[in-house]
Amino acid sequence: MSESTRVVVVGAGAIGSFYGAILKRAGCHVSVVLRSEYEAVKAEGFQIDSPLGDLSYRPDGVYRDGDTPEHEADYVICCVKVLPSIDRAALIKPWVGENTRIVLIENGIDIEREVADALPDNPVISCLAFIAVSRVAPGKIEHKAFGALTMGAWPEGITDDCRDIAARFEAGGIDVKLSEAVVGERWRKSLWNTPFNPLSVLAGGADTVTLLDTPGGEDLARAMMAEVCAVAAADGYPMPESAIDKNIAGTRKMPAYRNSMALDYLNGRPMEIEAILGNVVDIAHHLNVEVPRLETMRVAFSMRDVLAEKQA
Amino acid sequence: MSESTRVVVVGAGAIGSFYGAILKRAGCHVSVVLRSEYEAVKAEGFQIDSPLGDLSYRPDGVYRDGDTPEHEADYVICCVKVLPSIDRAALIKPWVGENTRIVLIENGIDIEREVADALPDNPVISCLAFIAVSRVAPGKIEHKAFGALTMGAWPEGITDDCRDIAARFEAGGIDVKLSEAVVGERWRKSLWNTPFNPLSVLAGGADTVTLLDTPGGEDLARAMMAEVCAVAAADGYPMPESAIDKNIAGTRKMPAYRNSMALDYLNGRPMEIEAILGNVVDIAHHLNVEVPRLETMRVAFSMRDVLAEKQA
Repeated sequence: MSESTRVVVVGAGAIGSFYGAILKRAGCHVSVVLRSEYEAVKAEGFQIDSPLGDLSYRPDGVYRDGDTPEHEADYVICCVKVLPSIDRAALIKPWVGENTRIVLIENGIDIEREVADALPDNPVISCLAFIAVSRVAPGKIEHKAFGALTMGAWPEGITDDCRDIAARFEAGGIDVKLSEAVVGERWRKSLWNTPFNPLSVLAGGADTVTLLDTPGGEDLARAMMAEVCAVAAADGYPMPESAIDKNIAGTRKMPAYRNSMALDYLNGRPMEIEAILGNVVDIAHHLNVEVPRLETMRVAFSMRDVLAEKQA
Repeated sequence: MSESTRVVVVGAGAIGSFYGAILKRAGCHVSVVLRSEYEAVKAEGFQIDSPLGDLSYRPDGVYRDGDTPEHEADYVICCVKVLPSIDRAALIKPWVGENTRIVLIENGIDIEREVADALPDNPVISCLAFIAVSRVAPGKIEHKAFGALTMGAWPEGITDDCRDIAARFEAGGIDVKLSEAVVGERWRKSLWNTPFNPLSVLAGGADTVTLLDTPGGEDLARAMMAEVCAVAAADGYPMPESAIDKNIAGTRKMPAYRNSMALDYLNGRPMEIEAILGNVVDIAHHLNVEVPRLETMRVAFSMRDVLAEKQA
């Protein structure tokens, strides 16, 4: 594949803009499709402050939802938030041609199926981002730390497509771990996210130190992690017992940290409850695994949604 | 006992003022001890609008915390909210003499022990109020419906003291059910309150219809009720299986209803989490009963408290 690999980033928030910058740096032709902040990005491009250097760039194309592509993309990179209210497949479909590979850089469990079902003829590459990055103003991104991707073909395996796009991310300066079982990788990330993210919100937007210092807090987090392990194992992705200890010890070592869902909550933004928690509970039901603690949180959030709809 | 039975109501909020009015109507000498709204009540007494008629009254004595009683009370009626931050025993102690009986009209499980331990020589009568009453302005109370008391000696039995004070409440116009096992009565009320009150708060202050209409909502409420039943049974107060069905059916029949804890939450007032939920979880731990759903809620609230303390 030539240097002129065409990439379209759909959902160019903090994550999408950052990985777009990496691919731009690697010599790709990078266009972005924006839902908001179109004017700012069209006029000024992205300003990205990063420990990797100045990653600021002007995309080769700046589009809005509903625009029509001029060329077929080699890769559509989907970085849209995974929310029941957002039809991700419909958002990316206009940018997906016969030979386009779909790359998802998104959080959650079982978030590929919906896209793969709607676009069955295009390969799906599933990625997890380990990164601290945030949008500070329209078009302005602050990359604080990390950036590595874990990547695999969905539902499994490592294809030439994976190797190709991984090489481009690496050429742009970030580490990529290729995985034969990306769903298992999602379960490993879920081991932390599925308990801690929603719990931090139910606790009013609490940070990790507050969660673990509360009497009963660590025990509850561990019990929720054990529920995630049980579902993952039933789904075919067992994790070692030691994974829970390691996660707790790692969390204890970090300074007080507010996860992305806590920040979404505190800033009144929609939260990826279904992707991170609800889908785990659904899989548990399907596989007859008891997850009373996760289910309590999930239903509490569903109640909030029902209440919000009534009050809307 | 003569018509001049001396009653001191400590914590004359909506509940305390109402039952003070009932005892006043029955011919008792009724004084009140207030934490706030002293000036208004001292000047104007209580205005109480009620389906029972106009229950407005001027207490025979209006006191503040720290005042000294002029006479020994026959009954101290404690209607103080049950909160970890409030030392109820210390609040009522100045008003309790050698022959004073302590009457608790308060919500929750195992809320008597703290008072009984601090005042071991005075009998404790434990009451549950089934009433819809609220404070609408300083000294102004709206009694909307109901008012019956369930009452028994603590920890068990029906004493002459119970019969005596029950007769006065009845003379004032309300129904009293005397119970040989008031702790069992508390468990029966807890069957509804322990799941629904905290759940409504975690759901953002949701009403009963919202809670039960949410997908998974009724199942979760039933599973939490089953946890309460298991703890109550282990504590020596088994409830029939049908109790859960009856409570759910009863709730379904009611119009949308926000419970007192939901209202406390929405109005930024302290909530009786420990009395209604935490004590149940503590008893479950003590008796080795698994209560994963109740525990999830309890710890989430504890996390909120820890966060609030840090932010204070």
